[in-house]
Amino acid sequence: MIVVLTGGTGGAKFVDGLRHSVPPEQLTFVVNTGDDLKWWGLHVSPDLDSITYGLAGLLSRERGWGVKGDTFYCLQAMGELAEPIWFHVGDRDLAVHLLRSRLLAEGKTLSQATAEICSRLGVQARILPMTDSRVETRVDTPNGDLSFQEYFVQRWYQDPVNSVRFAGVDVAVPAPGVVDSILTARIVIIAPSNPITSIGPILAVPGMRKALQQTSAAVVAVSPIIGNAAVTGPAGILMAAQGLPVSIAGVAQAYHDFLDILIADVRDSAVADQLNQSGFRVHCTNIIMNNANDKARLAQTVLDLVTRSAASRGATDHS
Amino acid sequence: MIVVLTGGTGGAKFVDGLRHSVPPEQLTFVVNTGDDLKWWGLHVSPDLDSITYGLAGLLSRERGWGVKGDTFYCLQAMGELAEPIWFHVGDRDLAVHLLRSRLLAEGKTLSQATAEICSRLGVQARILPMTDSRVETRVDTPNGDLSFQEYFVQRWYQDPVNSVRFAGVDVAVPAPGVVDSILTARIVIIAPSNPITSIGPILAVPGMRKALQQTSAAVVAVSPIIGNAAVTGPAGILMAAQGLPVSIAGVAQAYHDFLDILIADVRDSAVADQLNQSGFRVHCTNIIMNNANDKARLAQTVLDLVTRSAASRGATDHS
Repeated sequence: MIVVLTGGTGGAKFVDGLRHSVPPEQLTFVVNTGDDLKWWGLHVSPDLDSITYGLAGLLSRERGWGVKGDTFYCLQAMGELAEPIWFHVGDRDLAVHLLRSRLLAEGKTLSQATAEICSRLGVQARILPMTDSRVETRVDTPNGDLSFQEYFVQRWYQDPVNSVRFAGVDVAVPAPGVVDSILTARIVIIAPSNPITSIGPILAVPGMRKALQQTSAAVVAVSPIIGNAAVTGPAGILMAAQGLPVSIAGVAQAYHDFLDILIADVRDSAVADQLNQSGFRVHCTNIIMNNANDKARLAQTVLDLVTRSAASRGATDHS
Repeated sequence: MIVVLTGGTGGAKFVDGLRHSVPPEQLTFVVNTGDDLKWWGLHVSPDLDSITYGLAGLLSRERGWGVKGDTFYCLQAMGELAEPIWFHVGDRDLAVHLLRSRLLAEGKTLSQATAEICSRLGVQARILPMTDSRVETRVDTPNGDLSFQEYFVQRWYQDPVNSVRFAGVDVAVPAPGVVDSILTARIVIIAPSNPITSIGPILAVPGMRKALQQTSAAVVAVSPIIGNAAVTGPAGILMAAQGLPVSIAGVAQAYHDFLDILIADVRDSAVADQLNQSGFRVHCTNIIMNNANDKARLAQTVLDLVTRSAASRGATDHS
């Protein structure tokens, strides 16, 4: 079994490669829900949706979110009704938000609603929200305490960031199946998602880091940072705000207490050598995913690396 | 002031004529909400929407409901998610249901939500739901006790009908402004809507018939029946089920305790003569509304008739 901890954007790209390399019944995704929002009165889970659409083959590759070929007529009408439209929801995408909101209103948990949506869309891999509790990523800025979507989508991550917190996380518990899947996995992959606001909320759920420390699985992370900048999005800004170096060293530091292997870009070979000398294990490859080939190759590289690593560890054990 | 009691389909056509003859600030609509339904978790008020869209110039004239030029991509996606799609909601139409549902979830009454939607759409006439309470039209058939939309839309009104009832009406009260507007009106018009399931629920709200009996306004109804059949829809079937003749005599009987003038079609002149001899006041004209001219002419006929009637009554008073 392979467990992937992931956010939406970078994670979804990686997942798109992985789904062609691994049978779906061997895949479990533990997904960030700190970005969830109430939008037009509906419960929207952007990262769960990106992973679900990715696995269903419905994700818009151009946009990186939402349903491919979607239209925006309801959004346009909402604008004409003077409702906010800065968070873009397509007409087909809306169907999933309507279904999820109805299931939650009927008393289902987010896990159950997610499983139901996956079943309806024919997704065979298991998708788990990190928690069924409400955890909200808040970004403190000089211009106010913002929700992640306000910071990221509405305001284009232009605000300086004082700090990031996960409101409600102290009393949250991992969703059913999350800890078990990590403890019994053969491989745990940390997707190339934002370490602060995509992977950060998952790790902040009580019990999660402990499970990652205790598992006998190889824990591998794919860096979302190349050189001193994020491949996409505000990961660099947010890492800096949280006191982490914006580099693969910062990624290694964020995951230092459970990480076995960090996959970094070939352009970071020099830093990787330094990290390897200080006891980290960093493997360099091309981690940019511009097309289907890139995605498939990166997924396969991660899987091969863990398999070789396990074989060599086995050889060492028996030496 | 003119008050119009109305349902959706026939009423909306009549309203489309009336809005060109009367300044909006002189018009109040009291609208049936017995057809309201929870659909995809949202509160849908089909008759309120038809009247609102009609007054906003947004109503689809081809369909007679929903927004003109609307698309159905969300509906299609709901179908792919195995959600029910027999009640058709367009992508633009959905925006109004989302807004109304959010306002209701925030604690607004249906009256307040309706006023807000009207304001956002630039509708200057006043639209009032018959009540802010939940009243549900139920159609008892040999195949089960159906909601009105199940009977009408899902099952194409093919079931024999035992009876119709308005669940919850006993404890309902007229929405704020409804009784006052009737009592202070110069003219009350009963639109050519289904007497049983469009006008029937309005009249069943406690206090409504009394207001119509007490008002000094001329109360005029436009018949939805020509000969022995409804112009559209199941009005005939439902009148028969409720023990009324399917004819203008049945319409006159449904409204006998408050009606001053019934407007019937010229083809019903013979029955009209009989009714006139028995003390009813029936005026015959062409009541079919095939186009904008028909609608405008019918609205003007109703207004002229009431004005002439008031003048002659005034003359009688002074004689």
